[in-house]
Amino acid sequence: MSKFTLAVVAGASAAVGAATTAAIYGLGGSRRQTPETQSVTTATRTGPLPPIQQRDGPHTPGPIIPPVDPSGVFQYGFPGPVNDLHSAVSLTSAFDRAKRNPHWVAEHITPASLLLRNGDRRHSYFAEDPAIPEKFRAKLTDYARSGYDRGHQVPAADAKWSQEAMDSTFWLSNMCPQVGEGFNRDYWAHFEDFCRRLTSFYPSVRIVTGPLYLPKREADGKWRVSYEVIGHPPNVAVPTHFYKIIFAEDGKTGGNVSLGAFVLPNAVIHNDKPLKDFEVPVEAVERASGLEFAGLLPPARRRRLCDEINCSVIVKEYAERQRTMMTPPPAKPGQAGTGLAQR
Amino acid sequence: MSKFTLAVVAGASAAVGAATTAAIYGLGGSRRQTPETQSVTTATRTGPLPPIQQRDGPHTPGPIIPPVDPSGVFQYGFPGPVNDLHSAVSLTSAFDRAKRNPHWVAEHITPASLLLRNGDRRHSYFAEDPAIPEKFRAKLTDYARSGYDRGHQVPAADAKWSQEAMDSTFWLSNMCPQVGEGFNRDYWAHFEDFCRRLTSFYPSVRIVTGPLYLPKREADGKWRVSYEVIGHPPNVAVPTHFYKIIFAEDGKTGGNVSLGAFVLPNAVIHNDKPLKDFEVPVEAVERASGLEFAGLLPPARRRRLCDEINCSVIVKEYAERQRTMMTPPPAKPGQAGTGLAQR
Repeated sequence: MSKFTLAVVAGASAAVGAATTAAIYGLGGSRRQTPETQSVTTATRTGPLPPIQQRDGPHTPGPIIPPVDPSGVFQYGFPGPVNDLHSAVSLTSAFDRAKRNPHWVAEHITPASLLLRNGDRRHSYFAEDPAIPEKFRAKLTDYARSGYDRGHQVPAADAKWSQEAMDSTFWLSNMCPQVGEGFNRDYWAHFEDFCRRLTSFYPSVRIVTGPLYLPKREADGKWRVSYEVIGHPPNVAVPTHFYKIIFAEDGKTGGNVSLGAFVLPNAVIHNDKPLKDFEVPVEAVERASGLEFAGLLPPARRRRLCDEINCSVIVKEYAERQRTMMTPPPAKPGQAGTGLAQR
Repeated sequence: MSKFTLAVVAGASAAVGAATTAAIYGLGGSRRQTPETQSVTTATRTGPLPPIQQRDGPHTPGPIIPPVDPSGVFQYGFPGPVNDLHSAVSLTSAFDRAKRNPHWVAEHITPASLLLRNGDRRHSYFAEDPAIPEKFRAKLTDYARSGYDRGHQVPAADAKWSQEAMDSTFWLSNMCPQVGEGFNRDYWAHFEDFCRRLTSFYPSVRIVTGPLYLPKREADGKWRVSYEVIGHPPNVAVPTHFYKIIFAEDGKTGGNVSLGAFVLPNAVIHNDKPLKDFEVPVEAVERASGLEFAGLLPPARRRRLCDEINCSVIVKEYAERQRTMMTPPPAKPGQAGTGLAQR
């Protein structure tokens, strides 16, 4: 069954009855009868499977008509998960209803978009996202006195081009609990600044940001995932790490794309730590998150970001950064002061 | 944007280019402009938001045309998550690519389906599921020497009506790591037996089964989720709990449905423990899993399962259970020996 068909089922079954679902779904057919998967099936079992007729017992000669309808439960509602794929002017996101954090938030910045200054973060307010059902929503009260920042995934500073654009970065569906001092207000902010400075060398930069919940090897040799959940009752998961996948485009149709993937721990990171220490293969983020980021990008168009530019942060102290929040964006290529040495 | 549209986007964007995606997606429009969500928005912020024209800065008089295209990243592939919704003759399932366990597996049993005995588990083999991309698949080697059973979510014993039906319960996409002795081979098996015995009173029983990863309050008062990940490298999450949502149907079109929801820890459970101790509201499973199970079932049609029948397990020792595996299914209503006293 194709992804398209599955997606239609997923959408349709939430709204219509079991009869339609069954009709679309083609109940009774096995999904593993395509030549491709059949060969894999055979490979993982001990020898080929006999045709179904030979397996019929004495009670039912001839092919068996399934006596049950497992997908019929959709008549009571499609279980999901629903990933709340949403778009606003400044970001597109998918939401994890079990952890009340986004799965990923995608943004797009250009030299021109960073030059516009029509939005001011002093006019924006953190807000619960009414597009997420109440039962699965992150709440303002979950973060209150939790000890964690409401950490933007798409930074407000990337969406100054209109107040609406900036406002839409303040929904809690664009937030995760982040360690404040030493991370969100420091190294992570320097990393976000690095991403903006990329527009000095690339006319178009796309960034996908999101949380990870990574296992750690313990003293007994076993791997465990362990993370706090904030709120009373506990509601929002505190990620162990955050990733950014960066697509720096050369601006040509079908042109080259310089890829960079970074994974940072949700913890105090010393400013001296080189950004390159956090560089990982895109596939590492994919395995950890269950997501896929560049499956349709042909290898011939791929470049490695950190081969082309100097992947390092510039440390600006928090107070200074706040003061310069509304100063012009980074200089254009060829101008001094971008902080990104081209190799 | 309706779920249907989102689902189409999710499916389509994996296969087609950015142009189509952008066309379907209606880029630039904000999702929160419907009257319903707008009112919620206003309620969660401090006063109504002024119209966007009044917010324009001096640089751009008039409405702002978005200078960016956040969903344009879909040209490199849709990130997902893809939930691998699949159907086989004996089950329908959705898969969690981050944890390599199912989100849920749905089945359907009837008195007639349990009477058929054309499948034999001695002819079935545990197998990796070729329908899940290799990168996200649970592997046989992950379970090897892990100390955990390959725990069926839809039990093999519910799918004896054909060998194909039974075989399709042996894909690892129908498994989670389960504590063996004291749980999978004992209390959990008694619980599965309880579900089968429901067909003595209800002509049609639907069961949705899946894993949970629940937080626990620690000594410092904080809530933490903590679970092992098995495999080398670590690959498959070990759930802390398992749920079953039971829909016992009266067999009439639009008839009554008796609902039962149970959450059991993935741990040794003493046989004396009453099953009713594990009964929870359906909504508790929904909040914990991020899923929804009965949104389309009108309250007037709902009954509470444990109000109608005696929700308790019958303890059969493992050896005896293995011996009686192929004996006839539970007796019909009115006959003795079902072990379910009708109230």
